[in-house]
Amino acid sequence: MKDRIKIGVLGGDLRQSVVCSLFAKQNIECAVWGVEGLSTEMNEYNIVKSADWKGALGGAEVLILPLPLTTDGVRLNMWRNSLRSDTYIPRLTEIIQAVSKSCVILAGKVPANIKRFAAENNVNIVDYYESEEFQIKNAVPTAEGAIVVAINEMDITLSGSSAFVIGYGRIGRTLALRLISLGCHVTCVARSKRDLAWAECDGCNIVKLKNYQSAPTACDVIFNTVPHVIFDNTVIGALPYGQLYIDLASSNGGIDFESAEKHGIKVVKALSLPGKCSPVTAGRIIYDSVKEILEECGKL
Amino acid sequence: MKDRIKIGVLGGDLRQSVVCSLFAKQNIECAVWGVEGLSTEMNEYNIVKSADWKGALGGAEVLILPLPLTTDGVRLNMWRNSLRSDTYIPRLTEIIQAVSKSCVILAGKVPANIKRFAAENNVNIVDYYESEEFQIKNAVPTAEGAIVVAINEMDITLSGSSAFVIGYGRIGRTLALRLISLGCHVTCVARSKRDLAWAECDGCNIVKLKNYQSAPTACDVIFNTVPHVIFDNTVIGALPYGQLYIDLASSNGGIDFESAEKHGIKVVKALSLPGKCSPVTAGRIIYDSVKEILEECGKL
Amino acid sequence: MKDRIKIGVLGGDLRQSVVCSLFAKQNIECAVWGVEGLSTEMNEYNIVKSADWKGALGGAEVLILPLPLTTDGVRLNMWRNSLRSDTYIPRLTEIIQAVSKSCVILAGKVPANIKRFAAENNVNIVDYYESEEFQIKNAVPTAEGAIVVAINEMDITLSGSSAFVIGYGRIGRTLALRLISLGCHVTCVARSKRDLAWAECDGCNIVKLKNYQSAPTACDVIFNTVPHVIFDNTVIGALPYGQLYIDLASSNGGIDFESAEKHGIKVVKALSLPGKCSPVTAGRIIYDSVKEILEECGKL
Amino acid sequence: MKDRIKIGVLGGDLRQSVVCSLFAKQNIECAVWGVEGLSTEMNEYNIVKSADWKGALGGAEVLILPLPLTTDGVRLNMWRNSLRSDTYIPRLTEIIQAVSKSCVILAGKVPANIKRFAAENNVNIVDYYESEEFQIKNAVPTAEGAIVVAINEMDITLSGSSAFVIGYGRIGRTLALRLISLGCHVTCVARSKRDLAWAECDGCNIVKLKNYQSAPTACDVIFNTVPHVIFDNTVIGALPYGQLYIDLASSNGGIDFESAEKHGIKVVKALSLPGKCSPVTAGRIIYDSVKEILEECGKL
Repeated sequence: MKDRIKIGVLGGDLRQSVVCSLFAKQNIECAVWGVEGLSTEMNEYNIVKSADWKGALGGAEVLILPLPLTTDGVRLNMWRNSLRSDTYIPRLTEIIQAVSKSCVILAGKVPANIKRFAAENNVNIVDYYESEEFQIKNAVPTAEGAIVVAINEMDITLSGSSAFVIGYGRIGRTLALRLISLGCHVTCVARSKRDLAWAECDGCNIVKLKNYQSAPTACDVIFNTVPHVIFDNTVIGALPYGQLYIDLASSNGGIDFESAEKHGIKVVKALSLPGKCSPVTAGRIIYDSVKEILEECGKL
Repeated sequence: MKDRIKIGVLGGDLRQSVVCSLFAKQNIECAVWGVEGLSTEMNEYNIVKSADWKGALGGAEVLILPLPLTTDGVRLNMWRNSLRSDTYIPRLTEIIQAVSKSCVILAGKVPANIKRFAAENNVNIVDYYESEEFQIKNAVPTAEGAIVVAINEMDITLSGSSAFVIGYGRIGRTLALRLISLGCHVTCVARSKRDLAWAECDGCNIVKLKNYQSAPTACDVIFNTVPHVIFDNTVIGALPYGQLYIDLASSNGGIDFESAEKHGIKVVKALSLPGKCSPVTAGRIIYDSVKEILEECGKL
Repeated sequence: MKDRIKIGVLGGDLRQSVVCSLFAKQNIECAVWGVEGLSTEMNEYNIVKSADWKGALGGAEVLILPLPLTTDGVRLNMWRNSLRSDTYIPRLTEIIQAVSKSCVILAGKVPANIKRFAAENNVNIVDYYESEEFQIKNAVPTAEGAIVVAINEMDITLSGSSAFVIGYGRIGRTLALRLISLGCHVTCVARSKRDLAWAECDGCNIVKLKNYQSAPTACDVIFNTVPHVIFDNTVIGALPYGQLYIDLASSNGGIDFESAEKHGIKVVKALSLPGKCSPVTAGRIIYDSVKEILEECGKL
Repeated sequence: MKDRIKIGVLGGDLRQSVVCSLFAKQNIECAVWGVEGLSTEMNEYNIVKSADWKGALGGAEVLILPLPLTTDGVRLNMWRNSLRSDTYIPRLTEIIQAVSKSCVILAGKVPANIKRFAAENNVNIVDYYESEEFQIKNAVPTAEGAIVVAINEMDITLSGSSAFVIGYGRIGRTLALRLISLGCHVTCVARSKRDLAWAECDGCNIVKLKNYQSAPTACDVIFNTVPHVIFDNTVIGALPYGQLYIDLASSNGGIDFESAEKHGIKVVKALSLPGKCSPVTAGRIIYDSVKEILEECGKL
C-alpha cells in the first residue's frame, strides 16, 4: 500500500467504525465524522475525530460514505447514536462539491441522481455495493439474520416447518441451503428454469412463479428475496390470515403492504440485516471491497 | 381415549395454552386458571376459565402444571401476563392438598421436597420433564434459540466463527450439528471418550475437559450445556476479556458468575429457550409427553 | 402432446432405454435400434425394435441420438452390449443424409463439424447437452459418482480428509457442498473472485488459481472440474508422489497425463458419471431436456 | 510408552499392516506373520517378518489378531493375499496355548467359546471391538461404504430418493445424517421411543417397527442396521419385487435370505465396510483402541 494516504470517513454505523479500524491498522490516517460507536471501539492511533464534516474532508484523497448512502435521497445517512440534537447533517450535493477533484468517493447504493450530480461536478464516485462479490459475501449475514427473524416470529421451530423462498439468487440460495440444513422443508419459487434447476439440486421443492401466484400454497413462513411486487392484491387474497411474510429484498419489497395489512398478513421487513446482526463481518466485507477498488484505481 | 375426562390446568405460559388447546380438540374438558394468553389463542369449546385456582381443580382427574413448576420452590410458576396485582398465587403444598386422591398431577422439573410432600399426602405427581424422549425433543428448540442468542450477541457471522461447545449430550450434539451446518468451526469439550468419539464423528474438533480447563483456547463463542461449574475462577482467569459465554444448562449454570463479571466475561444465561422461541412446538412436546403418561396410567 | 408422433432412437446406453420408455408411456411410438438394454427393461407397448438403423428412421419426425453422440468423431456412439461382431455402425454423415428434411435430430455433445454438415444438408440438429439447466441437473449424479470414486480410491474416509476442488462451476459447487456435508475439509481453487466468494460462503477454504499453481498444497484428493490443463509439468512436479487426482472435466482433462504418470500421480479419469452411476436419473434428465426442446419447436 | 516391548501380529488385512506400522513408528518391535500387504506398505524398521506363526509369538508380550478374529470359529482369519497354497492356518486354540502366560491377546469379535478357552488356559484375551468408542468411530467408514454400495446399486441418485434406515443406533444415525445431507428422504424405523425421538430431531420421518413390519412402505432402498431378523417371510411378502435391501448388520443379518431370494428382493450384504473402503482409517481406529487397552493394563 502507498504511504500515508489520508482517508475521510463520514456517517454510518458500526460497519464504518470497522472500516476505519481496519485502514488504521494498515497505517492509513483516517479523519472521521458522524460515525456511530466511534470512541469506544476505535483503535485511536491513526484515527482523528473531526469537529465537523468538512474537517474530515480536508486533504482526503478517499472519502468513505455509508451503505446505504442515504435514506431520503438528499442527506447523508447518519445513525441516531452519532447525532446530537443540533448536529447538521450534510446534503450529498454539498459533500460532492466540497471534495477535492482528485478525491474518490466510495459509497453503498448510490442513487442515480447523485451519480449524475457527481459526474457533472467531475467527482469520481464508486458504488461498492454494485459488486457481485460484495453481494455474494453479504448473503451470509443476511441469511443468518433472516433465520433469527424467522425463529423469533414463528411459534414453532424452523426444524420441521415449511418455508417458501421466493427467488433463488444470491440470498435465496444462501438462505435455502441453511434452512434445509436446519431441518426446514423448503420450496423455492422462481421464474427462470436455471434457478429452479439449482433449487431442486440443492434439495428444495420447486414451483414456477406463475403457478405460485395463481395458487399460493399455505406454509409456515414466506421469505421474499425478489425486489419487485410478487404479492399483489390477488395473490395476497389467497394467503391465509396471519401468514408470516419476511421481506429480504430492497425497501420497496415484494408485497403490496397496504393490501397485506388489510388481509392480516404478518409482514416483517428485514432490511440491512448484515449491519444489524453482524456489523463486524459486514464492515470487513465493505473494507475488502473498498480496498480492492482503491487498489484498482491506484490510490492504494 | 376415555370420554369426558376432566383436566385442570393451572399456571404457565403459552405452552400451557397449547396443551389445553390440544386436549380440548380431543373432546376433553379443560378447566383453566392463571394460564398466559388464555383468552385470545384458545379454542373456546371444551375450555372453561375458572375464577380461582381451586375452581380449576374441582372434579379434575388430571392436573397439569407448568415447566418449570416453580421458580421459588414454594409457589406455582405464573407468567406476568396472567397476573393481576391482587392475584393470589397458590403454594404448591396447597395445590397438592386440594386435589382429590385419585387425581394425578403432571408438572415439569418438580423439586425433590415437593415430590416428598406429594408422596406423604398420597398424591401421585409425575414429572414430565424427566423423560429422555422429552429432553431429546426439546433439544431442537433449545438449539435454535441458542443460535439466535449467538447471532444477536456476536458482531460476526456464525459462519466462519469458532465455537466451543461444552458437553456433548442431547443439547450439545443437537446444537453442534446445526452450528457445523451453518459453517461454524466447532470444538467439543467433554469428559467421556464416548461423547468425544461422537463429537469427532459429527465433524467437531475435540478437547478433553481436563485439558480445556487447564488451558482454555480462545474462541468467538462458548456454549455451555453442562449443569455444573466447569468455569471456575481459575479457568475464567485464562479467558480473554470480553469472551462471549452462553449458558444453556440449568439455572445454576456452568460458570462462577461473580468471577465472570470481574473478568469481563460476557455471560448470557439462555434458559427456557423452547418456551421463549418456539412456544407452540414446546407446548406440543409437553402435550405428547403428558398424553403418553396419562395413557400409561390408564387415565386416557 | 400431439398424437402419434413417431420417434426414432439410435445407439446409446441405458439412458436411451429410459428416454424411450418415458416417451412410450406418453403414447408416442418409438422405433429403436442399437440401444443397450433394450429388451429386458423396456415397456414393450409403443416400442418397435428395428432390424437395422435405417429402419428406425422411417417416418420418424424426431431422431434421438446418444450423449456423447460420438467417441471417434465419425460414427455413432454404441455401447458394447448392443453390438454383435458383425453389427454395422453407421457414420453420422450417413444418418444425417438419411433422415427426412422435417426430422429434427437431438443429440448430446455434437462436434462442430457435424453441426456444420447438418446445416449444409438442411437438417435440424439440436444439442440437448448445451442447456444450462441440463448441466445443472447432471451435476448431482456427477457429484455422487465422484464421491464413490474418491471413497473407493482413498484408504481413508472422506470424513476428516482434505480435498481440493479445482473450479467452482456447476460441478465444483455441487460436489464441494456434498463433500463438506460428509465432513471433508474442502479447499476451492478458482480464478474468478465471484467463484471464490461463493466457495467461501459455502464453507470452503479458498486459494487463487495462480497461487495454487505456483505452490500446490498437499492434500488427500484433488478433484478437477476445469476442462483445460491446470496441472502442467511444473505444477505436477510440485505434487507428492502418489497424489490422488480425480478428473471430472471433459475428456482432455485438466492434467498432462504423461507427466502425471512419470511423477507417480494417481490419475483417475471419471467421465460420464451420470450414465454410469445413475442411468435412470440421467435418462430422465435427457428426456426432460428433449421433451422441452420438442415442445418449443412444435413437434410436441 | 515403555521401551522395547515386543508385539506379535498375526493374520489380518491391510488394517493389521497399518496397526504394525503405527506401533513401529513408536519404536515398538513388531514380529509379523500372515498379514496382508506386509512387504510393500510397511515401514521396515522395527518390523520383522516371521517365517511361521509361532515365530511371531516368541517373546511377544502382546499379540494382535484380526477383526474379525475368525470366520469359521476355529482358525485364524487370514486374507487371500497373504496365503500360499501350502500355508498352514493355525487354530485359535493352538495360538492361545502357544502364547506365554503374561502375554495379552487383542482381537476383534472374539467368539464366546474362544473367550472361555482362553480363560480356562489363564490367557488374557481382550476384544477391542467391544468398545463403544470403537464402534462409534467405525460408524463413519461404515456409513461411507454403505453410501457407495447404494449409489452403485441404484439406478437413480441418492439425492431425491427415498431410503428406510432400520435401527437408529450408531450406524443408523451416522448413516441417516449423511443420507439426509446428500438430499435423500430418510425414514427411520426403530423400536424405542428414544431412538425415534432422535431420528425425528435429526430430520428423519419416523415409523414404529411394529407398524413398519405389518405394512412396509415402498422405497428406493432399505438399509438394515439391526442384527436380528426384522424381515421375515411375512414382511418380505409385502415388499415389491426388486426392492433393494442393503444389510449393514452382523453376518446373520436382518432378513430371511431364502425368502428374500424367492420374492426377488435384491439383497446386498455389506459387511466389513471399514476394512474394505477405508483400511487406513479402520487400521488407525484399531490401533487407537489397542493402544488404549495396552496403556490401561500397563503393557504400554
